[in-house]
Formats: sequence, structure tokens, C-alpha cells
Amino acid sequence: MTLNIALLGFGTVAQGVPFLLNENKEKIEQAIGTNVEISKILVLESSKERLEKQFDHNFVTKIEDVVDDTEIDIVIELIGRIEPAKTYITKALKSGKHVVTANKDLLATHGQELISIAQANNVSLYYEAAVAGGIPILRTLANSLNSDKITKVLGIVNGTSNFMMTKMVDEGWSYEEALKTAQELGFAESDPTNDVDGIDAAYKMVILSQFAFGMNINVDQVSKTGIRNISPEDVEMAAKLGYVIKLVGSIEEVESGLFAQVSPVFIPKGHALASVNNEMNAVYVESIGIGESMYYGPGAGQRPTATSVVADIINIGKEIQVEIPAHPFNQFKRETVLANPDDIKSKYYFALEVPDKNGQILKLSEIYNDTEISFAQVFQQGSNGSTARVVIITHEMTQKQLHEVTEKIENVPEFKLLNSFKVLGA
Amino acid sequence: MTLNIALLGFGTVAQGVPFLLNENKEKIEQAIGTNVEISKILVLESSKERLEKQFDHNFVTKIEDVVDDTEIDIVIELIGRIEPAKTYITKALKSGKHVVTANKDLLATHGQELISIAQANNVSLYYEAAVAGGIPILRTLANSLNSDKITKVLGIVNGTSNFMMTKMVDEGWSYEEALKTAQELGFAESDPTNDVDGIDAAYKMVILSQFAFGMNINVDQVSKTGIRNISPEDVEMAAKLGYVIKLVGSIEEVESGLFAQVSPVFIPKGHALASVNNEMNAVYVESIGIGESMYYGPGAGQRPTATSVVADIINIGKEIQVEIPAHPFNQFKRETVLANPDDIKSKYYFALEVPDKNGQILKLSEIYNDTEISFAQVFQQGSNGSTARVVIITHEMTQKQLHEVTEKIENVPEFKLLNSFKVLGA
Repeated sequence: MTLNIALLGFGTVAQGVPFLLNENKEKIEQAIGTNVEISKILVLESSKERLEKQFDHNFVTKIEDVVDDTEIDIVIELIGRIEPAKTYITKALKSGKHVVTANKDLLATHGQELISIAQANNVSLYYEAAVAGGIPILRTLANSLNSDKITKVLGIVNGTSNFMMTKMVDEGWSYEEALKTAQELGFAESDPTNDVDGIDAAYKMVILSQFAFGMNINVDQVSKTGIRNISPEDVEMAAKLGYVIKLVGSIEEVESGLFAQVSPVFIPKGHALASVNNEMNAVYVESIGIGESMYYGPGAGQRPTATSVVADIINIGKEIQVEIPAHPFNQFKRETVLANPDDIKSKYYFALEVPDKNGQILKLSEIYNDTEISFAQVFQQGSNGSTARVVIITHEMTQKQLHEVTEKIENVPEFKLLNSFKVLGA
Repeated sequence: MTLNIALLGFGTVAQGVPFLLNENKEKIEQAIGTNVEISKILVLESSKERLEKQFDHNFVTKIEDVVDDTEIDIVIELIGRIEPAKTYITKALKSGKHVVTANKDLLATHGQELISIAQANNVSLYYEAAVAGGIPILRTLANSLNSDKITKVLGIVNGTSNFMMTKMVDEGWSYEEALKTAQELGFAESDPTNDVDGIDAAYKMVILSQFAFGMNINVDQVSKTGIRNISPEDVEMAAKLGYVIKLVGSIEEVESGLFAQVSPVFIPKGHALASVNNEMNAVYVESIGIGESMYYGPGAGQRPTATSVVADIINIGKEIQVEIPAHPFNQFKRETVLANPDDIKSKYYFALEVPDKNGQILKLSEIYNDTEISFAQVFQQGSNGSTARVVIITHEMTQKQLHEVTEKIENVPEFKLLNSFKVLGA
């Protein structure tokens, strides 16, 4: 018996699938117990002729050619975005086909609906490649860390922004220079919003919350701050204090519930995440059993993403061979409860512009003191004669205190709050 | 239906098992579809009374009480070493019980025999905790990286030696000071041979070779050099050149076959392994699909090891629930072929003691040149008036060249080869 698969789409990642199936043919057959054939590839009518000249595959142009074909066992969706991917996946599941996808946007926004359709039709829906492309983090959470209780997940899960931050930290580039180079290298799109404003990372936090905490939050419940406003002065001060700045997605469970956020974070140089550089990704996990663990690898790219897709194919293939009932990729489910902002604590970095005259730090101290926030360190970083840059590192404070102190500072006309970032570490 | 387990041994790690089963009760029941009960714990006659006073478990003293109990589904061996663990596991498997163990020594030396017994009796034998305690590396290799072709594995898999090397690198401690502290902290045993001479790491390389390369080497086929001879001068020179020294287990597949080694290695400071410090472990994987990935976490300790043991219990529990046939933990198998030393290439660091007079570097150059080894860098690190310390970093050279040049140097009475270590990087 052959395992027949169909690809929807034949872009960069999809072309990596036949490469891996061919290179690792023997190993994959050994794992599944049968061979894998790509029986059809769905492409646009406009590309079909060109692709047929270039590749020896059976290209089709109608989704019915795939979903109505009873020989096909698994459909691999690699079109991306919401539509027509959602409709195609739905049709495939309803035709009793298992589905593998790398589509993070779709999973983060319509995942629960698709998972229900898969369950109703007794088929599997796997999506390892949707979070941190080449890092097998979802299967690890589902099949290995299922014995543990996770308390915090920190992820560097957007390669574009991490590439930019690495250049800003290591090379002293400005945000604009870093973005320009990322665009030239093809990492960043002409509209980089999803990457630099933390939206892409927030999608991944939604999926990670399901696997790590059994809770189902939506992307609007992930607090998002991007990297646009990080200045060379912030980077310089971070370095001076022994930190690197990176865009970090975090999910933590406190007594009152779950809190998910994407924001620039000051990471101590000795922390495992601090040396995750350029376009590499990493997911760092704190848990009561293992303690701390980290999973590091490329977050995108043809072969890494295809490797995760093929791992899903193998796992479904094995399950078909031994005839076990289909089950959700993630089996951990609890009631979703969001945290009270009073319970979310962190140290913070504040950068402010204040008039360059006596008494300003006293005035600032009064504001922070009124909000019961205590300083760990205060620096005057520079002055242009009329205004000075003041940097504060606080002791632990709550989200609620952060909002309060921000509002108070904004009410003082001569103070300008330039940035406030979380600082990792006790 | 309850999943009944029995523990063999009730030491530190074993005591972590009821802790995790209790803390994560709901999540584990959700994953398996049933509850887990520890029905019996096998202990020594001499400890039984004391343990019964302290813990509310059913302690027994005869292996027959476990293996003849038809209610018990899974036996968890946490006694360690070869005997009586081997006999007990064999009895359990032959009685049709699934077995989970953390016993690396046993698996590395008698694994194939035990795996055959498990297969013959249609039961599972899982041992995630045997390599890098808290890092779920074996299941990741088996279930996720099965879609990839691995070309190299580098592991920091011995916490004791990594703790010592971290102190030698970061704090400038001597080997003796580092060992003394490791012993005081309980990391190192009074006879530290297994840790500092790379034997413990070699056992882990044997098991990793099976999962990553499908090949079954024995521990004598792992080349071993420990950390005893690393001097503060080596550490200082490494730092000066941008490296840290760590004890690294490596397995690489070259055209002619597999080569496994445990040895001190110069790791460039920017490499992901360079910041794996103290007692932490990491396994770094190079592959044609993902490219580079790393799995980082604690290599030992009660809770991390118990987390891996409980993950094995959950996986067996799920498989029992859906009634799938037992299968080996690792399903990847190829013919074992060892590499030709001509094919194993690396850059090397050499530290030598030579007479402090003119012409010595010329003489050394002639020896290396005769062996067709070229220098990347040469330094004179210091002199005591009569002898000088010379350090050489080479370009890539083969294992065979290493043996040849070592012999030639040893044949020059006034030269003393102090150390030669691999240098990572192209």
C-alpha cells in the first residue's frame, strides 16, 4: 500500500517536500512502513504549463481533482493566507482526507473551526510548521512536555525582526538601516507591519498557548508592541547594562490566568535566548518538571519548513498504518482564563526625555514613588543642552502599575516617555 | 480502566515520578485517556520499613511481586547500573509488561538484547531519560527529525564536566579546583572517571547514534579524550582566540561511515553551544533539512529526569489505550559502517613545549609540512627561560594526519606535545 499525498500550491516550501521525500526515502519508508507518493499538485491554471515543463509531477488546477480522488490519503496545504486555503482545507477534511498545513495565520484565526471539522470527519489536522518553521516545538509540547506543567514560554519566533535586532545590537545599525537590509535580503516584505509590529509573533503565541497551556486565546488578546521605536540609545544603554534587546513573544500563567504579549525585551547576556541571533528562532520554556529548556533552529525557509511538513506526513502515515483513530494534534485543553494585570510582574526599562535642569530626577522619583514603583538604577544618558535623556530600570512592578505610571508621566507636559520595555530576570 | 505502574527503586529520580503524576494529574489523564496509579514500588528489604513510615505507597521487596502481578501495565526501572536492573527489566518484558528506564549504561551496553526481548514479547521499551535527562531529544529524533537526514550531532551531555569547564573558562579555576567544587556540590563522585574521561558522554553517543544515524556502534568504538589535561594556559589561549573549551560528544557521518568521539573542543564564542554553561546540557544537530537546530535543558536532576520518565509512561499509556502494536522506541536502522580516519576532518589546536631557542618554530613547521598540515595561526604563549609554550591552530586536517603528526612530534625528544584539541568551525 502506497501513501498518496497531494500538495496544494507549489511555491518555495512545497518544492522542498519532494526534495526531502526523495533524499530520505528509505528512512521515511522505514518509519511509516510504506512508500509515499506525491500523486497530485494543485496549482493555478496560469502556472500549469510552465510547471509541467519544469517538473515531472501531475499538476491539476481544480480542488475537486484532489478532494474527489479517493486514492489520496493526505492533503498538504501550502498556499498560505486565509482564502482559498480555508475552503480547500475544509473540503479536504470533509472528504475524509488528513490535512497537513504550515498556515499560521489560518490556524491562529480559524484553527478551532478546522480542528472541529477534522474531528467530526475522523481525520487528522497537523501543523508543526506553523510555529517556528524548522523547530519541532509543537510535537515536543504535545508528546514530550505533556508530562510537565509549563509556567512560562518565551519565544523569538519572528526571523525578520530578530535579524533586524541582531544588526541593531551587534552592528549599531538604526532601525531604518536594519529594515532596508532585511528588505534587500528578502526577509522583510515591502510592508513589514506583520513582522516589526509583532503581529506574526502574536499568531504564533496563540498556537503556542494552546499546546503549552491548553488555553485558547485569540490574537487580539495578545498585547503587542513592535520594534519600530527602538533607538540606538536604547540599544547602547542595554549593552552597557549587560543586556541585548530582542522582540520576544511571552506567555505566562499566573494565579489569575494567562497573559500573552509580544514586545521588545531586555535579555541578560548570559540568558540562553540572548545568543539567538539573525534569522534564527528559539522557544524557551519554564516548567515545574524540566525547569528551563530551549528549542532552537531556523524559523522559516524552504527546507526547514518542509522538514516539519514531512514529519507531519510521517506521523499521519504511521497512524494510518496501525489504524489508530485520528486525534487532535494538541490534546491539552482547559478553560481559557486571562490574567489580572495586577498579577503580571516584571522589571522594566524606561527611557524619558526631560528638561535639562535641576530637580527633574526628583520629580520623576515622586511620580514612580506615588505608583509604588521602586528604582533599581537611574542614569542620565546624555543631554543636548535643553533636554536630557534619563533611563530608569525598576524593580518588579505590575502591568497595572505600568499603565498608571505611563499615564502620570504623559500628564507632565515637559516629560516625554520615549520607551518602556520589559527586563528579564529576577 | 486505570493504568497501573510499578517503580523499581525509590531513589531521588523515582521520587520525582509520583510528584509529577500528582501535580499534572488532569493533563496526564487527558493525554492518556485514563488515570495512572503507582501500584507497587520495589525496594530493598533493608529500606522497606523506613520508607513505609515516610511514604504512603505499597512497597514490596521481591521482583516477583511486580512481574507476576497481572494488574501492572508498565514497569519503571530506576535502580541504575547493570545488575540487577538488567535481570529485572528482562523479567518484566518477558512477563508482557512495558518498561520505561533511565538507565543509560545498561542501554548503551545491552540495549540491543533488551530491545529484542521487548519485540519478541510485543511490549514497549522506552528510555527518553537515558540521554540528557530533561531534554526530550530521543523522542524528537524519533518522531520529528525522522523526516530529515542528520549529518552531525554535537552534544554537551555530561553536566559534571560542563560545570567544571564553565568554572575553568569563566572563573579561571584550575581542573583540580573545579573538580573539588563539583565534588563538594555533589555533581561529581569521589571517583570522577566516568564524567571527566568522557565515558558517560560516550554511552550517550552510542544511544544517539542509533536514533540520529540508525547505526549501532559500541562504546569502545567511541574515541574518548577527557578534560584532565586541560590547563589554564589552554583556557586562556582559547579565550584570546575567541573560543571556549568544552567537553563535546560528536557523531558525524562522512562518505565512508560514522565517526563518534568525546573530546575537549574549541567552540567559537558565537556558536549556539558556547553559551551552554554549568550543569546544563544541549544537543546540537546539523541536517540537510532543518540545517542547524539545538535542544537545550538540564541533563540530570530529580524533576527533569522524572519528566522524561513520565513522558514515556504517557506515550505507552496512549498506545495501550488505542491498542496499537508495540514498536521499538527507535525505528531507524541501517547497516553500521565506521568511517575511514582519512575522511574525518577538523581544524586542530596544538599546545607544545619546546626549547626556548631559535629555530624551533621552523623545526615544528617542517614536521607539520611533512604531514601536509598547514598552520592557520602560530603563537609563542610564554617562556620560563629554558622552555617556551607554542600554540598552533591548523587548517582542516584528517584524523590520520593527527595520528601521524602526533607520532612525529613524540619522536623529537626536546618537544613535548601538551595537548591537541579539535576546533569547531570551517
